[in-house]
Amino acid sequence: MKLLEFNQAPNPRRVRVFLAEKGIEVPTVQVNLASGDNRKPEFLAINPMGGVPVLELDDGTYLAESVAICRYFEAQKPEPPLMGVDAQDRAVVEMWNRRMEFEILGMTAGAFRNTSEFFKGRIPQSPEYGAICRTAALKRLEWLDKELANREFIAGNRYSIADITALIGIDFGRTTGIKIDPAQKNLKRWHDAVSSRPSAKA
Amino acid sequence: MKLLEFNQAPNPRRVRVFLAEKGIEVPTVQVNLASGDNRKPEFLAINPMGGVPVLELDDGTYLAESVAICRYFEAQKPEPPLMGVDAQDRAVVEMWNRRMEFEILGMTAGAFRNTSEFFKGRIPQSPEYGAICRTAALKRLEWLDKELANREFIAGNRYSIADITALIGIDFGRTTGIKIDPAQKNLKRWHDAVSSRPSAKA
Repeated sequence: MKLLEFNQAPNPRRVRVFLAEKGIEVPTVQVNLASGDNRKPEFLAINPMGGVPVLELDDGTYLAESVAICRYFEAQKPEPPLMGVDAQDRAVVEMWNRRMEFEILGMTAGAFRNTSEFFKGRIPQSPEYGAICRTAALKRLEWLDKELANREFIAGNRYSIADITALIGIDFGRTTGIKIDPAQKNLKRWHDAVSSRPSAKA
Repeated sequence: MKLLEFNQAPNPRRVRVFLAEKGIEVPTVQVNLASGDNRKPEFLAINPMGGVPVLELDDGTYLAESVAICRYFEAQKPEPPLMGVDAQDRAVVEMWNRRMEFEILGMTAGAFRNTSEFFKGRIPQSPEYGAICRTAALKRLEWLDKELANREFIAGNRYSIADITALIGIDFGRTTGIKIDPAQKNLKRWHDAVSSRPSAKA
């Protein structure tokens, strides 16, 4: 088994933090997105979407999509639970993880993808849409601050994959100057807490 | 238990088709997106994202996000399995479902949201980004046609939630003139097959 990833991109970090929380070690192979290794035919044969991370299983199966990879490891090593503990909790964690994907990481990534020099010439960009994403991300941070007034973590009182997605989504906002306002005290408290876990350095 | 939904929107249809495949009946309540009922404070208290579907559980929990709702029902009634049958298969189905969300439904929805009269004044629109989504969706249909050359369904040889997402993503393309090219014979064969299941009318 090996994990194809790139240590400077946000989605691979989701899986690295997840694995660190689980205490699972997997050999990694770097796929350099900066030099376009993910757009070469040999990589597109592995993942036609051209994205990392991709987990290569021992039977040769290639598993792409960060959350699908996390779900595989959650089944292999259920403790500590990062995707919920029973049917209802698993659905609640999934709801929150998806909200963090679409409303936070999706927006900070959308701002970067559509305005950065990095993606110029790599993908069709819309600076207009990038600006919409940026405004949306800032608005969602305000909302998330209020949500965190009465609970410790994103999906309740247990650290979960939703915290990982939110952490990485917010941290990635740095690429376009999207950040937590110091007045957002609940969000700041949460961000300090999840950032100080050893897994955050993964 | 009741399902808050809107019978003209694509995401609620995902859950309706899923429930039809499972043979589960849930009372529904219409939330009229056309008249903006989802933007009213009483609905935003239920789902701050303003989206449908939302499942109200008997204990008063509100569960949003289509796939989170489907996952809840998959646990309640595992047969027929629509989200995979073992750890690896569940991860593979999730990978394909996510690809269909991001690359197909996300793109046909992005084209509609950013160019339609319906969303004018409701959300910030970028026609420029809408055009990017449209081009991406058409390119992904070409790719999907090739993927389906050697298997019956999106995630393998069993009908799954990935087929539901792809069906609804493609059907929603009609709103902006995105459709299967008759030369895409594998995709056409698959679309005819999934459309002819009784669940497709849900």
